[in-house]
Amino acid sequence: MESSQNKIRGLVAATVTPMMEDGKINLSVIGQYVDYLSNVQGVRSVFVNGTTAEGLSLTTEERKQLSEEWVKQAVGKLDQVIVHVGSLCLKEAEELAAHAAEIKADAISVMAPSFLKPPNKDALISFLREVAAAAPSVPFYYYHIPKLTGITAIRIEDLLVGIKSKIPTFQGVKFSDTDLLDFGQCVHKYESEQFTFLYGVDEQLLGALAMGSHGAIGSTYNYIGKTTKEMLAAFECKDLEKARKIQFLMQEFFSYVIRHGFGIPETKAIISVASNIPMGPPRLPLQKSSDEYLTKIIAQMKRLALL
Amino acid sequence: MESSQNKIRGLVAATVTPMMEDGKINLSVIGQYVDYLSNVQGVRSVFVNGTTAEGLSLTTEERKQLSEEWVKQAVGKLDQVIVHVGSLCLKEAEELAAHAAEIKADAISVMAPSFLKPPNKDALISFLREVAAAAPSVPFYYYHIPKLTGITAIRIEDLLVGIKSKIPTFQGVKFSDTDLLDFGQCVHKYESEQFTFLYGVDEQLLGALAMGSHGAIGSTYNYIGKTTKEMLAAFECKDLEKARKIQFLMQEFFSYVIRHGFGIPETKAIISVASNIPMGPPRLPLQKSSDEYLTKIIAQMKRLALL
Amino acid sequence: MESSQNKIRGLVAATVTPMMEDGKINLSVIGQYVDYLSNVQGVRSVFVNGTTAEGLSLTTEERKQLSEEWVKQAVGKLDQVIVHVGSLCLKEAEELAAHAAEIKADAISVMAPSFLKPPNKDALISFLREVAAAAPSVPFYYYHIPKLTGITAIRIEDLLVGIKSKIPTFQGVKFSDTDLLDFGQCVHKYESEQFTFLYGVDEQLLGALAMGSHGAIGSTYNYIGKTTKEMLAAFECKDLEKARKIQFLMQEFFSYVIRHGFGIPETKAIISVASNIPMGPPRLPLQKSSDEYLTKIIAQMKRLALL
Amino acid sequence: MESSQNKIRGLVAATVTPMMEDGKINLSVIGQYVDYLSNVQGVRSVFVNGTTAEGLSLTTEERKQLSEEWVKQAVGKLDQVIVHVGSLCLKEAEELAAHAAEIKADAISVMAPSFLKPPNKDALISFLREVAAAAPSVPFYYYHIPKLTGITAIRIEDLLVGIKSKIPTFQGVKFSDTDLLDFGQCVHKYESEQFTFLYGVDEQLLGALAMGSHGAIGSTYNYIGKTTKEMLAAFECKDLEKARKIQFLMQEFFSYVIRHGFGIPETKAIISVASNIPMGPPRLPLQKSSDEYLTKIIAQMKRLALL
Repeated sequence: MESSQNKIRGLVAATVTPMMEDGKINLSVIGQYVDYLSNVQGVRSVFVNGTTAEGLSLTTEERKQLSEEWVKQAVGKLDQVIVHVGSLCLKEAEELAAHAAEIKADAISVMAPSFLKPPNKDALISFLREVAAAAPSVPFYYYHIPKLTGITAIRIEDLLVGIKSKIPTFQGVKFSDTDLLDFGQCVHKYESEQFTFLYGVDEQLLGALAMGSHGAIGSTYNYIGKTTKEMLAAFECKDLEKARKIQFLMQEFFSYVIRHGFGIPETKAIISVASNIPMGPPRLPLQKSSDEYLTKIIAQMKRLALL
Repeated sequence: MESSQNKIRGLVAATVTPMMEDGKINLSVIGQYVDYLSNVQGVRSVFVNGTTAEGLSLTTEERKQLSEEWVKQAVGKLDQVIVHVGSLCLKEAEELAAHAAEIKADAISVMAPSFLKPPNKDALISFLREVAAAAPSVPFYYYHIPKLTGITAIRIEDLLVGIKSKIPTFQGVKFSDTDLLDFGQCVHKYESEQFTFLYGVDEQLLGALAMGSHGAIGSTYNYIGKTTKEMLAAFECKDLEKARKIQFLMQEFFSYVIRHGFGIPETKAIISVASNIPMGPPRLPLQKSSDEYLTKIIAQMKRLALL
Repeated sequence: MESSQNKIRGLVAATVTPMMEDGKINLSVIGQYVDYLSNVQGVRSVFVNGTTAEGLSLTTEERKQLSEEWVKQAVGKLDQVIVHVGSLCLKEAEELAAHAAEIKADAISVMAPSFLKPPNKDALISFLREVAAAAPSVPFYYYHIPKLTGITAIRIEDLLVGIKSKIPTFQGVKFSDTDLLDFGQCVHKYESEQFTFLYGVDEQLLGALAMGSHGAIGSTYNYIGKTTKEMLAAFECKDLEKARKIQFLMQEFFSYVIRHGFGIPETKAIISVASNIPMGPPRLPLQKSSDEYLTKIIAQMKRLALL
Repeated sequence: MESSQNKIRGLVAATVTPMMEDGKINLSVIGQYVDYLSNVQGVRSVFVNGTTAEGLSLTTEERKQLSEEWVKQAVGKLDQVIVHVGSLCLKEAEELAAHAAEIKADAISVMAPSFLKPPNKDALISFLREVAAAAPSVPFYYYHIPKLTGITAIRIEDLLVGIKSKIPTFQGVKFSDTDLLDFGQCVHKYESEQFTFLYGVDEQLLGALAMGSHGAIGSTYNYIGKTTKEMLAAFECKDLEKARKIQFLMQEFFSYVIRHGFGIPETKAIISVASNIPMGPPRLPLQKSSDEYLTKIIAQMKRLALL
């Protein structure tokens, strides 16, 4: 039975994957990472092995080790560990889903396969159903990120029609797109189903809150989680002016970095500075940012009091 | 001197161009159209010869006749007539800008030329400056609609840096895109300049209001202007729940129509029904919708109490 | 009756529009331009007011003056003057088509309107038919340039089914795309109709010749027309090795420039050097290239013996 | 030392992966598949675990089993087995490359990772170098398929500058794109390096042959290999008319199917009919075609004498 206590609300940090300088995953710092998120940023839920975590750049074995460590370290410290188990390969996704169930992850999430793409809504549902069925008692979140998967023609409002009869564990959506028509209609149309719609475009979260978003999920909450919680609180109290002020501050930072390039390498570097935990380099095909650029980013964050 | 009374606030209807069955523009109904907008929809400002008005499908002469008629009929009834004078051809745009000044239009607006595209921000500014200079005392609005122009790499926040020194008449932006990072930063960064940022994606207006939008501009306000004004009022009173309820209702309609195709032909047909004024067919390359489909659209609107 | 003498074969130069430094069109040099094309480049046919000619950046009046001058200067010197009469505005296109008939242009050509786009094949055909009907005795060429118009879903092979019954003056296609499946099937399927398919991606003309292209149309023939004629002759004699050698030389130049930016401004500058006729600057939204860059381009062309 | 005997010339079939009705890979028919390709289609080289083989939809283990079986069955029957070892995950790609070396595959090939994308040429080269280094004595082919990977800004001509110093095993490119400028310059610029450029857009192979292609690689050679060999022979003898006739025939088929949808499911079904070997269904996210549609496809192929 789905109790409302299990619902994800508030902030979810889409984590990065700590790596060592030689490119191996670094399980040893995940405990510290959990403490940092919980104690410093006030974040109580995490999304692991997702996009920012370079999940699709990891081997099956690495993904298992990571999710295991996250679940283990989260005990008593975090509310929810959501494990992304999506893959271009259905069988790998199934294996990871079964593993997530085994290690008692709180939820799993799957994005659409993006190389050979589902030709239509039904094919996508079939793919998701198979994965979900491999973890038949674990809440399932669809991960919608059309600009990265290239699957732009399937509206989520439409995808979710009758979803519970196909995917009984379906619980919600990580919605990482700027289309607030589709997002709004998800919130509205499925209100009675008690799904959870978490908005994933951090830099315009306030717009989604106005549209009824149940929470926020993204990589920036690794370092501006605390600030964002203030924004959520202000919004809750209908203090839109304050909420907007905080959102604008965060946007100022983003406006700066997207002009010069911003992605996973920079995110890992910022978290390293903010948390004092070495997150390490990204894995190829990504590459480290220059020290010069990182210095500027950090200076900019300090200027904006975001660090 | 720019007095704040001249600022556009609230709703602006992006009008359609009434045409006769033989495809000629129909100036004779514009008076009625103004009355309808003002009396029935509570709309006090209009944007003429824009996208929905098939502005770029009209001859220079037709555009002049239309703007003249709008300005004439608006006297005492509307606050602002904004004339879109954009064109692929700089010289045509200049001619239309000069004409708008002559007929005392309240403002002009220009979108970026979309066939041969400005190769960078400076080229775009140069183009806009030339047009604005042809109407040196008329407030100027940039019309940002990247999905239609294909010019997606120029951020408006960046475009506006120092804009007053280049375009002294610059007054604001019709912002028709879902990127609320760029939109929010426009609102925030240029607050002291007292520019006006009007949001142009009607189906997610509420998100932009949360981000500080100064008003709304779009074609749906031709027929759900009144409903939207209730939403604006609710938002003003911090009654987000009510605002959301209205936005969701409107989105329900949009969710329905975008599945089956929605554009200018359908917009003209809906306004014809709502206003009882024949807006006529669109001009090629657009084509009339089928009666069958229009019947369904109207039924859907009635079901949602939007008509 | 369509006599085969009127068929366009071989090379067609897509001309630029000579402009003065103040941005006015410069009719006075078109006579020289014709002489240069004919005498120096061996080009016997021209395409005027098209993309490279900034046709859509010109006023209706300028387009008429230009086509008139081209037709007048071509007498006894060129075989064919094809006037591009396409426009976002059907009525302007019709007016230009009627004018082209009046001045006895050899052919007209129309691209699809690219801002408000024809929603399907039938709408496009309807648009083209109206334009063609305004010049009922002038051969009509469809101008296919999907990457610029954004109309990528309509295959030409399909568009041409039954075209003669809809557009009796239909004569062929300026095919400016890399899809040689569609191109090949146009050549093959409509062989008995004696249409003319002219290939418009100059840098891979040889591929289209292999596929049965009837000729070539593009802006590079303004300056490497003579060289390309050698390629055509080699191909005709089945000397593929020689043809390839020439194509590769031309490609070497293109590989160089597309890395640094290449378009209408550079084309005008190169023709100015090659012909010693001042083609002038482009019109906004385009901008002049830097002298530094142009110097490099010219040096590169000389190095490759293309100038 | 690279002996020219080892060069791939002529046709390479991009194979499908035989699967059983329950979705398991079907190794048992690969022997028959090899015989069919060799005896019926005259194909002497294969590309396994690539796009058409649903390589990225397979587990690492499945990919190893498949490549092993292909190499084993190819002995004495095929000239070259090229194993695609590309993956979103560098470590998986390295593992597969090492395995390919171990089983003595004739060559390996890698496409660019397409989810997290290499941000520039250098990052891509670094990724490829790591994979190639895991099989230090196996010839390496880059697999260029920009429309599927979404990496459209990296020209191959540029990518290959100095490639041998970075990837000593580099041997050539599977070039699956319509850009014959880039393709032609690869052929031309690297002539002295004796690389092999195999063209991968089957439906316009003739255009690439004119541009100097060293061979053809694609999935259609599974069923029209024999016909295509006739085209290659005709081209070799400079009988362009005959070559074109064959290409047009094949295009006629493609024009038919792309209107109704054509991809891996249809390819597997056609090969099943042509070879009498059950290739089975595709794996999710792909889905079987309807029997009705497949019947039409087969009828069309018979009508064109392609089956």
